[in-house]
Amino acid sequence: MPSVIDRSPVQIAVSSGGASPVLARLLRARLETMIPASYGKLADFVASFRDKVKQRFSFDERRRFWESVLQGPIAEMLLSGHTQAATKALEDLIGQKKALGQKYGEVYLVGGGPGDPDLLTFRALRLMQQADVVLYDRLVSPGVLDLVRREAERIYVGKEPTHHPVPQGEINQLLIRLAKEGKRVLRLKGGDPFLFGRGGEEIETLMDEGITFQVVPGITAAVGTSAYAGIPLTHRDYAQSCIFVTGHLKDDSMDLNWEALAQPHQTLVIYMGLRGLPVISRELIQHGMPPDKPAALVQKATTSDQRVLVGTLETLPGIVEAADIKLSSIIIIGDVVSLHEKLAWFTVVK
Amino acid sequence: MPSVIDRSPVQIAVSSGGASPVLARLLRARLETMIPASYGKLADFVASFRDKVKQRFSFDERRRFWESVLQGPIAEMLLSGHTQAATKALEDLIGQKKALGQKYGEVYLVGGGPGDPDLLTFRALRLMQQADVVLYDRLVSPGVLDLVRREAERIYVGKEPTHHPVPQGEINQLLIRLAKEGKRVLRLKGGDPFLFGRGGEEIETLMDEGITFQVVPGITAAVGTSAYAGIPLTHRDYAQSCIFVTGHLKDDSMDLNWEALAQPHQTLVIYMGLRGLPVISRELIQHGMPPDKPAALVQKATTSDQRVLVGTLETLPGIVEAADIKLSSIIIIGDVVSLHEKLAWFTVVK
Repeated sequence: MPSVIDRSPVQIAVSSGGASPVLARLLRARLETMIPASYGKLADFVASFRDKVKQRFSFDERRRFWESVLQGPIAEMLLSGHTQAATKALEDLIGQKKALGQKYGEVYLVGGGPGDPDLLTFRALRLMQQADVVLYDRLVSPGVLDLVRREAERIYVGKEPTHHPVPQGEINQLLIRLAKEGKRVLRLKGGDPFLFGRGGEEIETLMDEGITFQVVPGITAAVGTSAYAGIPLTHRDYAQSCIFVTGHLKDDSMDLNWEALAQPHQTLVIYMGLRGLPVISRELIQHGMPPDKPAALVQKATTSDQRVLVGTLETLPGIVEAADIKLSSIIIIGDVVSLHEKLAWFTVVK
Repeated sequence: MPSVIDRSPVQIAVSSGGASPVLARLLRARLETMIPASYGKLADFVASFRDKVKQRFSFDERRRFWESVLQGPIAEMLLSGHTQAATKALEDLIGQKKALGQKYGEVYLVGGGPGDPDLLTFRALRLMQQADVVLYDRLVSPGVLDLVRREAERIYVGKEPTHHPVPQGEINQLLIRLAKEGKRVLRLKGGDPFLFGRGGEEIETLMDEGITFQVVPGITAAVGTSAYAGIPLTHRDYAQSCIFVTGHLKDDSMDLNWEALAQPHQTLVIYMGLRGLPVISRELIQHGMPPDKPAALVQKATTSDQRVLVGTLETLPGIVEAADIKLSSIIIIGDVVSLHEKLAWFTVVK
């Protein structure tokens, strides 16, 4: 099949008759999503070096030179705001008169969002499309992983709630080694890398080694869940603040500040709380939260496997147990949960 | 920042001088990887129904008809290879003259993210490209607003920290009225609509009127700030939870649960806390938080106006006052702030 690119949106529109403006606009919308807004900056940067490069290189050399620059880390430095570093690297490169090739590797720490690939950011997808190697784990949805460049090497460093197939220290070392080999390494995480993503721990070691990196925020699971389950995290009438914790069980208990969590007028969001839900429910009630406080567990929010189970602080553990939930889930406790009935708009039809 | 979209790849190439053919080609190659090859098939499919649709529908109806087809399950069927099913579904649809039953328009409640247009989600941009009218406020960045469909009507319902030019109730009524006129109404918010965005309040009234809506989560300001300032919100060694509040001043005080906020081992994020910072600092210290707790204020995170001011709970108010900060800002208080020095990667060069 011929690539659609060989036909401009205008040509497609003409051939499609009555639907032409619509199809052309849809295509344009799709194209717009694909071009980073900062490409203009890149064009200006390139223009500012035109004369220097022309003096130094032959016509053929110039083509190769710009290819290596525009597809490589220098362009990415610039697009991610490292203007000085990009300028210096380009000047070095012109001085050395050799193609940079892959001398500098770098690491992209990227949030893959809550599951629906439609909730990826432009920046995330762009980096996914130019990575040489991708390290991902269990919390990255298959639909998101599908959008990684086909040629990229994929390394599963999956994390299960109960055991880590690849220990954190090894992941850190792997990132360093790959970057030092000159690769563009994408560390892809579910949700956001800096909110229960251990992203801080991973890039701290990179920094020690002087490796360039950038961090791309993602829609964190709580926020994606909130939107797709119709449960606002804050609401003037119900909750003026919101607290995020992990409900990771250690020896059947949790090291949480229950008293602070049981406060009124706030929404409590618990990541990784499925197994610990009975403990959470018991402790919060013991620390003064009303047993009839609305509570919900949302499985695989934003995907076609989304399920929303609603009950109270007291009844939710039983409801969840009966429903045989096993997958990634978010627990939301607070009066805002009562809005779900009214605000639910995302329905999954199998 | 002007949208690059207004400049074609060719224009960009021209302005970039020596690198022009390379840059143009790279852009084109990038686009090719992004557009499903099957879009050509979709165009042909649409063309084959052109005459039938033209006979049956008026000009305005046709636009609406094709939009509903091209964005809905029929297009999905076709793109996924179910040509016969798609053909049958489209014939049914023309026969019923349905799908136009959009007597009411609909409302998209969309999170525009923290500022950098590169952090919009695909879904957000797609809806921005098909809206008839857009209601936006002060917290939506100009770069994001630039990406709204050019033909869309734009209505500013700006909210300032101290006064609301358009009262909330009027915004709600406006959304209802526009949707009832049959428009596709996009309510565009900075950050995420359900986390200090009052999105819940706005769509509650829509629901009462039976108006269709969807909610698109956005990167909330705290998460964008965290990534671009190099301050993880959680970190094994420093903070196992994170609490989000607003620091909105009422009569020089704030109705916050200071004791809960002053707890250790958590990160405290304050939205809209610039004016109240002296009060926040004083109250937290009075409620037992150490005066030397690391604290940062980040102005306009993720944009070229980003500034990160770092101090302690005690010193930050003075640092901020001296720096003459006036724009959207996020305050982060907690030990994770000490990581900024090490993890900052996004530098703005003017």
